[in-house]
Amino acid sequence: MVRATVWILAKHFDGFPKDSDFQQKVQELSEPKDGEVLLEAVCLSLDPYLRPYSRVLMKEGDVLIGTQVAKVIQSKNPAFPLGSHVVSSCGWRSHSLSDGSDLNPIMSEWPKDLPLSLALGAVGMPGLTALYGIEEVLGLQAGETLLVNGAAGAVGSVVGQIAKIKGCKVVGSAGSEGKVAFLKELGFDQVFNYKTVTSLEEALRSASPEGYDCFFENVGGTFSTVAIEQMKDFGRIALCGNISLYNDASPQTGPYPQPTMIMKQLKMEGFKQTRWAHKDPESQKRLMGWVKEGKLQWREHVTKGFANLPAAFMGMLKGDNTGKAIVAV
Amino acid sequence: MVRATVWILAKHFDGFPKDSDFQQKVQELSEPKDGEVLLEAVCLSLDPYLRPYSRVLMKEGDVLIGTQVAKVIQSKNPAFPLGSHVVSSCGWRSHSLSDGSDLNPIMSEWPKDLPLSLALGAVGMPGLTALYGIEEVLGLQAGETLLVNGAAGAVGSVVGQIAKIKGCKVVGSAGSEGKVAFLKELGFDQVFNYKTVTSLEEALRSASPEGYDCFFENVGGTFSTVAIEQMKDFGRIALCGNISLYNDASPQTGPYPQPTMIMKQLKMEGFKQTRWAHKDPESQKRLMGWVKEGKLQWREHVTKGFANLPAAFMGMLKGDNTGKAIVAV
Repeated sequence: MVRATVWILAKHFDGFPKDSDFQQKVQELSEPKDGEVLLEAVCLSLDPYLRPYSRVLMKEGDVLIGTQVAKVIQSKNPAFPLGSHVVSSCGWRSHSLSDGSDLNPIMSEWPKDLPLSLALGAVGMPGLTALYGIEEVLGLQAGETLLVNGAAGAVGSVVGQIAKIKGCKVVGSAGSEGKVAFLKELGFDQVFNYKTVTSLEEALRSASPEGYDCFFENVGGTFSTVAIEQMKDFGRIALCGNISLYNDASPQTGPYPQPTMIMKQLKMEGFKQTRWAHKDPESQKRLMGWVKEGKLQWREHVTKGFANLPAAFMGMLKGDNTGKAIVAV
Repeated sequence: MVRATVWILAKHFDGFPKDSDFQQKVQELSEPKDGEVLLEAVCLSLDPYLRPYSRVLMKEGDVLIGTQVAKVIQSKNPAFPLGSHVVSSCGWRSHSLSDGSDLNPIMSEWPKDLPLSLALGAVGMPGLTALYGIEEVLGLQAGETLLVNGAAGAVGSVVGQIAKIKGCKVVGSAGSEGKVAFLKELGFDQVFNYKTVTSLEEALRSASPEGYDCFFENVGGTFSTVAIEQMKDFGRIALCGNISLYNDASPQTGPYPQPTMIMKQLKMEGFKQTRWAHKDPESQKRLMGWVKEGKLQWREHVTKGFANLPAAFMGMLKGDNTGKAIVAV
């Protein structure tokens, strides 16, 4: 018998999440049956999507959703040998049982000098999101100018670097001087702190006076309204996230983007990376190749302790993290 | 010497246009030089785009923009023989001189039983807009469900009929009982009067409980917000017009569409039919073919008299017209 600690959604979020929305519980797990494995969490992913999807995918009392890197500590499934590591979608659980159907083994030939947590970041879902947004949605071409906001986040930082690999000019927006410095290190062409510029419109214009061919949207709201006005004719917008809107008790409003989209003949598309799941193995190899070549750099914002999951999640929503936010157990 | 009557933009529109924004003037035209023709307006097109583009394309004192069918009444250009008809972009002018560069001859083999004004409607710009929106932007497929608003207008009524030709289910929204009856005659599957339904949301749901694959947008604003929520996953939206927003003194606001676009992975694209101008001759033949076969029906809302152009234009913005709004000189 193994005792698992889990975090449940005690109460649906109303506005910005608060401590009392989360509750820790202990569950007793039986021994794995034939075909099953027992997993122990190594590190857990903190992702913005949990906030907008909380009412869609969970009811009060459910274990919070999410992915983790876990170690197989008992195995009755030969596909997942004892001591091996997997990415599991079991949510905020210290231990879990699985028949393997929801598990992805960590890529074979994982380099010894790279942390397994990259399977939750640059080589995992956020990296794939960046890659598919650029290649499948935007169709970004060499020589074009790309704007990305939330640029120092898990997805944004990969977006900008892939765009540089593709020979583009990259403009990034982030919310602190530390993030701005990080993005300059990564090779972004123009970076600004949207919290301290006197005018977002001016900052965007000065970063690329000729406008933007592509816009990778992680933030939404007012930023979006201002950025759309500076797209070039036939510009493309990949809608990945809207973190500035996730914690509103009632929806924010703004000017309709449609009139500008007609004048400039813009295309805007919402997407989830799961749409191209059939390409994941090959895509992860490409991402890992760039990491090994030093073309795709990564940073993690690590919070220690399973008990700190709610605080780390709320910190990520506030933008505390530079790079990928994870909790190490 | 010929005296031309023209309508000028006396004052930029502020909110809904009013009589005093327009002013009639007389201009004296010289005799056509070599290569030139003298044209006399036969009928003029009234198009919603004039309103949103008024500040972009005109300054106060300019002749109002627009197209017309005109007759060649003097010719020193063999490409445009005396007595032939052309589509001219000369604006609100009773007579005009042209070197031919802004003229399109009326399609050869024009059927004798069809009015030339169709070159401003179902076989002209509005028809091409409908066709390109469906084929180039939406990529509408047989068996899909299409929503079109402003459905009884010059573009909307063609959109629905082409979608029927392609084997789709068509839902249309319009603003009067007469328009609803007209659309039913045209073979639309479901039609409702958005002004009298108790709930737009309910009307859309009841017309297609399974949602919409494609949405051809002519209206914008609140209608757009409600309709986007009822798109199917991977739905496509062609942005053609936003007539509900054109006359605002300050921009209307509404909930941002982006979060729903991500959840449902929707694609939205603004377009102008000029993008596919290279296809126009072949496209106009297809439209004319459907007209001759009776598959593409048309109706015109004709106002008589060049002097009534402003009133007819304002009436069109209010939705007075069923089908294409024109002024016959």
